[in-house]
Amino acid sequence: MTGEFAPFTADDYRARMRHAARSAADAGLAGLLVAPGPDLVWLTGYEPPAATERLTLLVLVPGRDPALVVPRLEAGDAARAAGGPALTLRDWTDGQNPYAVTAPLLDARGRFAVSDGAWALHLLGLQRELPDSAYVAVSDGLPMLRAVKDAAELERLAAAGAAADAAYEEIRKVRFAGRREADIAADLTALLRRFGHSQVDFTVVGSGPNGADPHHEAGERVIRDGDMVVLDFGGLVHGYGSDTTRTVHVGEPTAEEREVHDVVRAAQEAGFRAVRPGAACQEVDRAARRVIDDAGYGEYFIHRTGHGIGTTTHEPPYMIEGEEQPLVPGMCFSVEPGIYLPGRFGVRIEDIVTVTGTGGRRLNGTARELGIVS
Amino acid sequence: MTGEFAPFTADDYRARMRHAARSAADAGLAGLLVAPGPDLVWLTGYEPPAATERLTLLVLVPGRDPALVVPRLEAGDAARAAGGPALTLRDWTDGQNPYAVTAPLLDARGRFAVSDGAWALHLLGLQRELPDSAYVAVSDGLPMLRAVKDAAELERLAAAGAAADAAYEEIRKVRFAGRREADIAADLTALLRRFGHSQVDFTVVGSGPNGADPHHEAGERVIRDGDMVVLDFGGLVHGYGSDTTRTVHVGEPTAEEREVHDVVRAAQEAGFRAVRPGAACQEVDRAARRVIDDAGYGEYFIHRTGHGIGTTTHEPPYMIEGEEQPLVPGMCFSVEPGIYLPGRFGVRIEDIVTVTGTGGRRLNGTARELGIVS
Repeated sequence: MTGEFAPFTADDYRARMRHAARSAADAGLAGLLVAPGPDLVWLTGYEPPAATERLTLLVLVPGRDPALVVPRLEAGDAARAAGGPALTLRDWTDGQNPYAVTAPLLDARGRFAVSDGAWALHLLGLQRELPDSAYVAVSDGLPMLRAVKDAAELERLAAAGAAADAAYEEIRKVRFAGRREADIAADLTALLRRFGHSQVDFTVVGSGPNGADPHHEAGERVIRDGDMVVLDFGGLVHGYGSDTTRTVHVGEPTAEEREVHDVVRAAQEAGFRAVRPGAACQEVDRAARRVIDDAGYGEYFIHRTGHGIGTTTHEPPYMIEGEEQPLVPGMCFSVEPGIYLPGRFGVRIEDIVTVTGTGGRRLNGTARELGIVS
Repeated sequence: MTGEFAPFTADDYRARMRHAARSAADAGLAGLLVAPGPDLVWLTGYEPPAATERLTLLVLVPGRDPALVVPRLEAGDAARAAGGPALTLRDWTDGQNPYAVTAPLLDARGRFAVSDGAWALHLLGLQRELPDSAYVAVSDGLPMLRAVKDAAELERLAAAGAAADAAYEEIRKVRFAGRREADIAADLTALLRRFGHSQVDFTVVGSGPNGADPHHEAGERVIRDGDMVVLDFGGLVHGYGSDTTRTVHVGEPTAEEREVHDVVRAAQEAGFRAVRPGAACQEVDRAARRVIDDAGYGEYFIHRTGHGIGTTTHEPPYMIEGEEQPLVPGMCFSVEPGIYLPGRFGVRIEDIVTVTGTGGRRLNGTARELGIVS
């Protein structure tokens, strides 16, 4: 279903690290310090079991070879990672001061971007060791680090979108009325896995009034004839994310239900059409929001219009008022407006969209009309 | 099997938070800032899904009411936590600056202990908001925050030890020879759960040469007659940890295997006997290590002698050379010397021990003789 992809090589990771170091320099930073987490996986292919009190830190400084500070017991795992050959390992053992091991790799007066999720313990250790150094969180200093996808990444995101679409086509065929939301969610999980997901991150099934709470996941409520049902699901395929939402109706919808769905569909289309290189992220949000505002439902659209997606299912850029970041070809994000009528029902429609040279391209292709289920 | 325990109440959490604030003051700190994680659970009973980019932070300042900075969407969950009634909630919404919400709760020139695992993003936010404030990691500034257990905690740790002991008694009866380490580990997991564990954290099965690697977990190796097998397992019972190790032998051991086991057993006994109020942690390590050194196996004892245990299975205090922290009644930790003969076999014996008014008391009670299995 999802095709085969050659694994990323040490050269791929070397290129990503070089790009990241150059981005840091362009942003006026002396370098980039990456703790275990999605950025480290993206840059090196290395995924330690978890961030811990033992320092693991990728040091990217423009013009120098990438260095990984790593506990000696884990150095073998790091070396065997796909990006391992592109790394100079600086291992340390219990009893040594890992910040003293790190310090010679850094400009003592430099300003560095550091992973948002790096442990405070480690940041304090670096600040103590290099009192004249300065730090900024990656999300503040280099928010677009992973935002622009290359061709190999776009292929994987397209495969993830196709796998999620296949799951949607199948879930439309199952019985909804009389079953619990949690049962539909379990079906969705199985379908996502069947169509190639190695990991399922969320399967929202918001039926009737539960659909009006965008934070609802899936619960014990038994779905009934006449319910609107918001289905929002995704996970990882070949290491890249899927995330799509369709709203279906059990049996024939009322005129009002159709109308609300039509408004959301038009808003989603308007958001999609606002995608073009150079447009600010907030313009995508504004375009979708305007349609809902104009239809009189503005107060019921209570979240941002979209979020980036890549090796994680939520990441920059964010399609939100105030985000002036210009869109760049290769960026991938959701366009997912919604209307939530408290105590009654909700509607959301979501596609992943990538920025092309001239506009946007959807990575989800299922029908956006209101689907009727039984 | 593990008895019933009344849940901790808001008053229990209030007392813990008061104690923590007093400890911070005693350590010369202006307060304690606690991110999601084990310290937050211990202090409030509140466990958000995960630490994220959205700030959740418990602020404990001596003489003031405990305050929890929390995203508005999660404020309801926090209020409903067992310690919720003891907290003043300061919620914030997307678009607000959560560090500006936190700042008025802090002395702008104060020095604070902050959770080791707090996100760098959040520490940088506080440093930016209060440039004259200073921070130290909890493990540096208040390492013994959770180390001294009260009577209610000791009861739970004793129950956890009894549950692990019951699992050991049962695992001795199963067939080892001809089965994979992973099969024994699965048996152990099932037994730990049967005897009351809500969570199994580790089930080490190190057979033959794998036993000589203290970081080995359990793999595909098929256990054979004549193997030494290190069994090290634990998890949580009623929110408190178990952790015990016994080494068994498949069939009759050789004289050398018996001798090595006898040395480790004597070392474990010596470590246990060194436990008394006022003794430094390193004395426990030295006492156990001396026995192994004297027997000529010193170079094969390649880790510290023990670690604290409580709501997590590894925490301060550490029984290690250089740790001068005096033992205090109520502290609980492992005493677990071992000998690892590379490529051949390993032996480790581990009990959880609590410090009493006059010495130590074991929370594990199974035989420390070399167990023979089939």
